[in-house]
Amino acid sequence: MSFTEYPSRLLENAVNEFASLPGIGRKTAFRLVMNLLRRDSEEVRKFGETIMKLRDEIHYCKICNNISDTEVCSICSDHKRDKTTLCVVENIQDVMAIENTRQFRGVYHVLGGIISPVDGIGPSDLKIDNLEERVKTGGIREIIFALSTTMEGDTTNFYLYKKLSKYDVLLTTLARGVAIGDELEYTDEITLGRAIANRNPYHQC
Amino acid sequence: MSFTEYPSRLLENAVNEFASLPGIGRKTAFRLVMNLLRRDSEEVRKFGETIMKLRDEIHYCKICNNISDTEVCSICSDHKRDKTTLCVVENIQDVMAIENTRQFRGVYHVLGGIISPVDGIGPSDLKIDNLEERVKTGGIREIIFALSTTMEGDTTNFYLYKKLSKYDVLLTTLARGVAIGDELEYTDEITLGRAIANRNPYHQC
Repeated sequence: MSFTEYPSRLLENAVNEFASLPGIGRKTAFRLVMNLLRRDSEEVRKFGETIMKLRDEIHYCKICNNISDTEVCSICSDHKRDKTTLCVVENIQDVMAIENTRQFRGVYHVLGGIISPVDGIGPSDLKIDNLEERVKTGGIREIIFALSTTMEGDTTNFYLYKKLSKYDVLLTTLARGVAIGDELEYTDEITLGRAIANRNPYHQC
Repeated sequence: MSFTEYPSRLLENAVNEFASLPGIGRKTAFRLVMNLLRRDSEEVRKFGETIMKLRDEIHYCKICNNISDTEVCSICSDHKRDKTTLCVVENIQDVMAIENTRQFRGVYHVLGGIISPVDGIGPSDLKIDNLEERVKTGGIREIIFALSTTMEGDTTNFYLYKKLSKYDVLLTTLARGVAIGDELEYTDEITLGRAIANRNPYHQC
């Protein structure tokens, strides 16, 4: 069933808006709009307002570029966080993923992307200058490159390394190896090779 | 990756709103919100406004209950439509599906649901009284029951039949049979049995 004609322009506009979102086709968009129509007027108004507020009132932390309700995000303004250890990530999803591990007590720097010539994203499109500025200001002891193990991630790592190696900071990357729960038989050879080369002394957990 | 903590309450609210929609999980909701965040402020405001307008300004046609921008929908107010033939459907999706066939020139009556004791939907929850009122007013020659071939659809058909058979109108239902493109081998026996019983004289298309 392809909808060629909608009985209402308001309905059609709403379907078009939802269908403009990634992974939402016109049929799904229509289903979502019908769901909203069945709700209370007040509830739907809140939905619309939340979306409008989101874009207009949200801040990007002026220190680390993480999303924030305030000028400086809750991590950067937390006195208990270790400001000498900086973790460089691609986006805020990665900040949240690392925060969820509860293993990291340092601070972050969100690049807002990754160098990808294919997509036309160069170093100047990312918050790399701000990163160098933070390093120059001093007080940072270690920078952890926590980017994806893709060609784009490696390219960005290399670019950051060239930019930052002249400063007196320790540059590290996340450990690479066989993921917990993975079977060796199905692990790709590059990962397995690296895991053997970087083997650790055995200790019982 | 399950997000336990969001860096921003505005972000969290927006994710919650999208995740309240059917079939949208928290991860998808987050992806949609991130997409909105990358857009122009003006574009996102339009998105929010469209949703708010949708619920507040949309009308249900006072004659047939179809969704409409005006008090009377474009189908009911179209002088070229045959007002003597009424097609009873469950919802506006069904109106749009039938309109897309371009085979029907009559008018509709949208019940707004189907009798389903399991879901607690009884006749009084549907626009059945309005339908009877339209029939009483006169001028209707034929009523087509165009409901799903489910138990709920059959129940609703039977209820409507009992209500309306006392009036001088022809009551019909959609033809049931083997769907175009279906192979007999995989057609269920009830459908196939009905298709044999209701066989038609052969004519070349």
